[in-house]
Amino acid sequence: MGETPVPAATAEAIRKRLESLAKPVGSLGRLERLAARLAETQSTLAPVSRPRHMLLFAGDHGVVEAGVGIWPSEVTAAMIALIGSGRASSSALARASGTTLGLIDVGSRVLPAPEHAAGHIGQGTRNLAREPAMTPEEFHAAWDVGAATVRRVAAAGCRVLGLGEMGIGNTTSAACLTALVTGCSAEQATGPGAGATAATLDRKRRVVADAVARARALWPLDQVAALASVSGFEIAAMAGAIARARQLGLTVILDGYVTGAAALTAFVLDPCSMGTAIAAHRSAEPGHALALAHLGLEPYLEWDLRLGEGTGALLLMPLLDAAAALLTEVATLAEVTGR
Amino acid sequence: MGETPVPAATAEAIRKRLESLAKPVGSLGRLERLAARLAETQSTLAPVSRPRHMLLFAGDHGVVEAGVGIWPSEVTAAMIALIGSGRASSSALARASGTTLGLIDVGSRVLPAPEHAAGHIGQGTRNLAREPAMTPEEFHAAWDVGAATVRRVAAAGCRVLGLGEMGIGNTTSAACLTALVTGCSAEQATGPGAGATAATLDRKRRVVADAVARARALWPLDQVAALASVSGFEIAAMAGAIARARQLGLTVILDGYVTGAAALTAFVLDPCSMGTAIAAHRSAEPGHALALAHLGLEPYLEWDLRLGEGTGALLLMPLLDAAAALLTEVATLAEVTGR
Repeated sequence: MGETPVPAATAEAIRKRLESLAKPVGSLGRLERLAARLAETQSTLAPVSRPRHMLLFAGDHGVVEAGVGIWPSEVTAAMIALIGSGRASSSALARASGTTLGLIDVGSRVLPAPEHAAGHIGQGTRNLAREPAMTPEEFHAAWDVGAATVRRVAAAGCRVLGLGEMGIGNTTSAACLTALVTGCSAEQATGPGAGATAATLDRKRRVVADAVARARALWPLDQVAALASVSGFEIAAMAGAIARARQLGLTVILDGYVTGAAALTAFVLDPCSMGTAIAAHRSAEPGHALALAHLGLEPYLEWDLRLGEGTGALLLMPLLDAAAALLTEVATLAEVTGR
Repeated sequence: MGETPVPAATAEAIRKRLESLAKPVGSLGRLERLAARLAETQSTLAPVSRPRHMLLFAGDHGVVEAGVGIWPSEVTAAMIALIGSGRASSSALARASGTTLGLIDVGSRVLPAPEHAAGHIGQGTRNLAREPAMTPEEFHAAWDVGAATVRRVAAAGCRVLGLGEMGIGNTTSAACLTALVTGCSAEQATGPGAGATAATLDRKRRVVADAVARARALWPLDQVAALASVSGFEIAAMAGAIARARQLGLTVILDGYVTGAAALTAFVLDPCSMGTAIAAHRSAEPGHALALAHLGLEPYLEWDLRLGEGTGALLLMPLLDAAAALLTEVATLAEVTGR
């Protein structure tokens, strides 16, 4: 797969190819739309779905101290360890779908082992309820970690790249970024995330509204500072990963709300980067649909997922195998009828 | 997989197991419901998704001569040949999902090769617009073909069985069976199938209404005769397959509207057989949702599929891998916290 050069294909040529297959036109519904999208991201009539990687970026968030959720920051390190042990949800779904899983700790509170220290920007962001979550310099550094990681997996042969994250508190950043970039209200952008009570959800909404108001004061003349002020190390890294994946011709599979916020970040700084993105699913977080609409991306699964950890993107992976097989293995009507 | 005996598990025990995993409760949404359903069909906390087969049953329909669709009966034989050549949509999706594909020609108009003649009941059904599509004896024979095929794949180690079909005209039978069993109107049960014009759809509705009225005269005292009068050889075979799969402990993955009509048939004659069934998707055919509601089955994909040929069930197969992995490979919160 991928060894025979295929001429670049336009969206129109891809549509015609799908319509030429030996079956009623359109009868495979959204699988055909997924196949078309996969082919578009690779500019070919013969897209591939493997080799593929899932990169999980992890980071902690100072805003957790503002009481925006029910989980303490310690859970981030516990989940990093669980993923490392191969017994997290993402570990199981990666194995089930034949996807190589990689974890990059960009900024958890616990210092990583020395061999992983190179990509560790800081021990969690600052509390965005009180001050900017990170400086533009830190944003650059995190972005570069994502870009460098993608360069590495691309060199190892990766063609399809799933993105996911782990970071207690990061749906607060995602809500801020969604409101900031799409222009929706803090109310619309803020959901329960991985867990909420009425009190934490109310606090989260107020924190988001205030932080977005401060970020908007920097908009649009200092977008990086505005984005950085409400972002997370893992989010900035994913944004850098998306932009670099586009440059290297990798298809990117986005996971849920937080990954969507990284895509919004990449979209602001490099709108063309969305040309490589596929939205795996629409999550249970209400702001996610607004983010996807802003990005012009159609989600393929509506499974009420709200775990993150790349799980939704991992569920779509085998459906990409089906989409690629449809375009590359099914006979055309002309071949069947001999006309 | 499947070699260690696991004690029978109740729905309540399966729910508790899912809630015990190291992630927010319910955060994997419909994947958790699919995992629970898969486990229920196997009465175990450790369900398997492989080895798996897709059995495609093919048959022709005399009602095609009444002008109920745009495709001639010859397409059935052409598709049987295409599936045999490995270049049909179902061939591609079976390979992509690691599913063994089998085709059983129960009743196409063209006589099959001698080595396949044993399971061939007749050269298409009679025209249900004028007379009963088949006799109760033919219905029995087709049912037995399905049951015998399942016995064979179960003996070969199959644990998960996808069912699909190929047969020009068979959405007319599916509409009749859906109206007959669920009590909905011919209007509600009849859609365009694989292709329709305004004229063919109008004729199809009238044919369905008349045939269902005649079948209802036999209901409920002679259910087999009523079902047989509007069925298809491939539909009766799939119904027999479902009932036998239940007896042998196989999980059955249903495809679209025609497979749903087979499930309705099995449900009438053996309501317990639905205990083994999972509805892969809700198709674009409007009657399918009514059939699934009658059966109490939740579809997992809403991808506007209307091809048949087992394609929707094949798309769900790798998601069963994910569902099984969730229950069998993810750590519990107690294991992580040591409590």
